[in-house]
Amino acid sequence: MSTAQSLNDVNLEAVGGLAAAVTADPAKAQTTWSANVHWTGAFQSEAKVREFAPIKSDEPAGLGGGDSAPNPVEQLLAALGNCLAVGYAANASVAGIEIKELDIRLDGDIDLRPFLGVMPGHPGYSDIRVEVSLVSDAPAEQIAALHEQVAATSPVGKSLTAAIPVSIKAV
Amino acid sequence: MSTAQSLNDVNLEAVGGLAAAVTADPAKAQTTWSANVHWTGAFQSEAKVREFAPIKSDEPAGLGGGDSAPNPVEQLLAALGNCLAVGYAANASVAGIEIKELDIRLDGDIDLRPFLGVMPGHPGYSDIRVEVSLVSDAPAEQIAALHEQVAATSPVGKSLTAAIPVSIKAV
Repeated sequence: MSTAQSLNDVNLEAVGGLAAAVTADPAKAQTTWSANVHWTGAFQSEAKVREFAPIKSDEPAGLGGGDSAPNPVEQLLAALGNCLAVGYAANASVAGIEIKELDIRLDGDIDLRPFLGVMPGHPGYSDIRVEVSLVSDAPAEQIAALHEQVAATSPVGKSLTAAIPVSIKAV
Repeated sequence: MSTAQSLNDVNLEAVGGLAAAVTADPAKAQTTWSANVHWTGAFQSEAKVREFAPIKSDEPAGLGGGDSAPNPVEQLLAALGNCLAVGYAANASVAGIEIKELDIRLDGDIDLRPFLGVMPGHPGYSDIRVEVSLVSDAPAEQIAALHEQVAATSPVGKSLTAAIPVSIKAV
């Protein structure tokens, strides 16, 4: 293999090895991810993922919270931006594109009335807008292909643009 | 008003005031939320929300990451669980239900092949399962109505179960 073993600090051997492994054995591609959330009073809670420090959550004062942490809809934008960042790093590295800087701005609109129960309607985001600022010396057509590939394959992005089943069960 | 001013540590006056304000002036219900993500190398990035400490992101070693933080699809489950926790706290308090304990377990399935580019298909979650463990002395029918209301009005939950527009623009 003539590919450099690292570009954008990405471990290309690991990524290539994973792609080869799931191609050879599709069962290895079937992953399950988990989180455990514990309510700590008022609008505060903590989400525990594996051994990591919990992701704390609260609401702004204007929504009746203690304003001690990002709220869940902000966390959703954060997850989307972080997902796109991985997508850029992975796909750029495989394509031989060096990323010098990458910043992603995310904005989304919510009508609070359905959540507050004062009006029926869609309580979620009505629209999410993402602005990607990517600094690279790669040719424009390579960059354009990169943007397209990342947008088309983002796990968080596609969990939002597709309607996915969420079952909520009391236990 | 005879309602208690606080239940489950929730500021009922603030929540009631907000509901009244957006009913009187729907423009006040139109909110925009934001995050800024900065790539820090390899599969690591940081999402900044307002003045809070950044939400750090990385991938597990098996996916070529440094395993220093929850990954974006885990953050998505965390956001969903935290959103449901707010929903339970708010709706229970308005309904006069005391919550003694609330824990939420979230699991979701992803086929990695579309993200890795080895197969076309849906790169996002194919299914998300939520188990809610709620301890309360309230009557069963009140609890059942609470579960129904929270599931129907969760901003993050409904951003997943509905297909929402996400526009990604290079700037």
